[in-house]
Amino acid sequence: MTATIERLAIIGTGLIGGSLARALREADAVDEVVGYSRHPGNIQKAVDLGVIDRGCISIAEAAEDADVVVVATPVGVIEQVFAELLPVIHEDMVITDVGSVKQDIIQCARARLGNAFSCFVPGHPIAGTEHSGIEASFAELFDNHNVILTPVEETDPVAVARIETMWEVTGARVETMDAADHDEVMAACSHAPHVLAYALVDLLVRQDNHREIFRFAAGGFRDFTRIASSSPDMWRDISLHNRHALTRVLTDYRDNLDDIIQMIQSRDGDALRDTFHRAKHARDEYFLNRKKET
Amino acid sequence: MTATIERLAIIGTGLIGGSLARALREADAVDEVVGYSRHPGNIQKAVDLGVIDRGCISIAEAAEDADVVVVATPVGVIEQVFAELLPVIHEDMVITDVGSVKQDIIQCARARLGNAFSCFVPGHPIAGTEHSGIEASFAELFDNHNVILTPVEETDPVAVARIETMWEVTGARVETMDAADHDEVMAACSHAPHVLAYALVDLLVRQDNHREIFRFAAGGFRDFTRIASSSPDMWRDISLHNRHALTRVLTDYRDNLDDIIQMIQSRDGDALRDTFHRAKHARDEYFLNRKKET
Repeated sequence: MTATIERLAIIGTGLIGGSLARALREADAVDEVVGYSRHPGNIQKAVDLGVIDRGCISIAEAAEDADVVVVATPVGVIEQVFAELLPVIHEDMVITDVGSVKQDIIQCARARLGNAFSCFVPGHPIAGTEHSGIEASFAELFDNHNVILTPVEETDPVAVARIETMWEVTGARVETMDAADHDEVMAACSHAPHVLAYALVDLLVRQDNHREIFRFAAGGFRDFTRIASSSPDMWRDISLHNRHALTRVLTDYRDNLDDIIQMIQSRDGDALRDTFHRAKHARDEYFLNRKKET
Repeated sequence: MTATIERLAIIGTGLIGGSLARALREADAVDEVVGYSRHPGNIQKAVDLGVIDRGCISIAEAAEDADVVVVATPVGVIEQVFAELLPVIHEDMVITDVGSVKQDIIQCARARLGNAFSCFVPGHPIAGTEHSGIEASFAELFDNHNVILTPVEETDPVAVARIETMWEVTGARVETMDAADHDEVMAACSHAPHVLAYALVDLLVRQDNHREIFRFAAGGFRDFTRIASSSPDMWRDISLHNRHALTRVLTDYRDNLDDIIQMIQSRDGDALRDTFHRAKHARDEYFLNRKKET
């Protein structure tokens, strides 16, 4: 097995797909990159920026004769992408995805790919910014970031090794995890925070004094709400496709918040201080000495 | 009226008090800075760092003969500070504070300062970091940041002008606002986000899989929870002293979150997308083109 990909097909030339193509090209780990996007303008931009060699007007055309196909579309359309890939799958093809949800995507793949399901390696690079689109892509996006692969029993180990190598070339750390565990962990550390940030900004913008609120908002608020600038379509899809794990975390969070509101109303300073202290201690322990990541 | 302060007393030589002293010294706007801290070690550090000229072992001693007294202690002890200041107040003295809550502090000042209440100018520099203490102080902390003053009917206009000038010297923009409005605005854009960030980290650290959750947490989580590294004592005090406005915002937030959980559970993608979109739009409008502040 060589680390070089002869023809890489990127289905969805946005931030993640574009950054992966850039990283593999910079590492000289790919001979040709073909791309597909629902929006023809994106394909042209990707060609103009030198991220892909050529664009295709259909998913099947982009994937044909590719040895690695990376599905980097929003989670909500992945099932349709699998359906369009099916006719052109050949025995040397490996398919992977970059979706933030894994159980639902595995279920779609199993339903749509039939006998070819074993060539699909479910994947999730834990990297991104609040910006979207090919213009926001950069080769270093995955450097020193985690990529989680969640292969199932049927997944071909050779295909897994191929995708593992691909991500390692970008500078990422690759780990394998159970898909259900992945979805629980991501609901807690990524999906819930996004929903919580959206919920705050959505609440505040509907207040009568929202102009003053935003005018006097300082750095703490800016950082807290940065993820509320993320793509609404992308996060609708993730929320719906990981809804079981996500609603569990959000419901627990609401209950915890209720307890804290109760502490404030009953002026229980000791309980409040203990809660804040436990949080500060955990946050400091995990982040203060950690390398800054995007 | 001159911009120069002959003797500045900083009661509470921490991040805010220390940064103010540094800024005024750099601008050559103060002749002498005396400091007081409950912790003798802090006073020595402030002297060693050159932030204050000398330290005092009591609040009264520090304030005596000062023309400007800045109360920069945690909100919870300000009432006691006022009581200790009362015996040394003279007619040319102006007292101000830097507390994040204004109605409660005004009430304490009115109760404790008696006839001298008119020399108290309630103030709040909207600046800070998640770090505390004199070591974290720096002269540029207030540069291009807002300072809100909330004088009441009895407040001496000359005292207000004096404090306004002091803050302008540090590079801050000074605005006057009604104390109740201030407390509502701050509950929304600062106090609630802090509580919400603490609530999330506190919830997650108590999960069985908390090690995985924190290990795979990326930049979005890091920024969302940065304010959960703030001082638990400081935020307990702020939460309790602004509890009416804060619990209103937190209760509205909990209700909004309930609506969003309902949208996810009922798979109402359109409502979810609209909510996320409204938040993203507001957040982008207010922050994307704004100068980065600390």
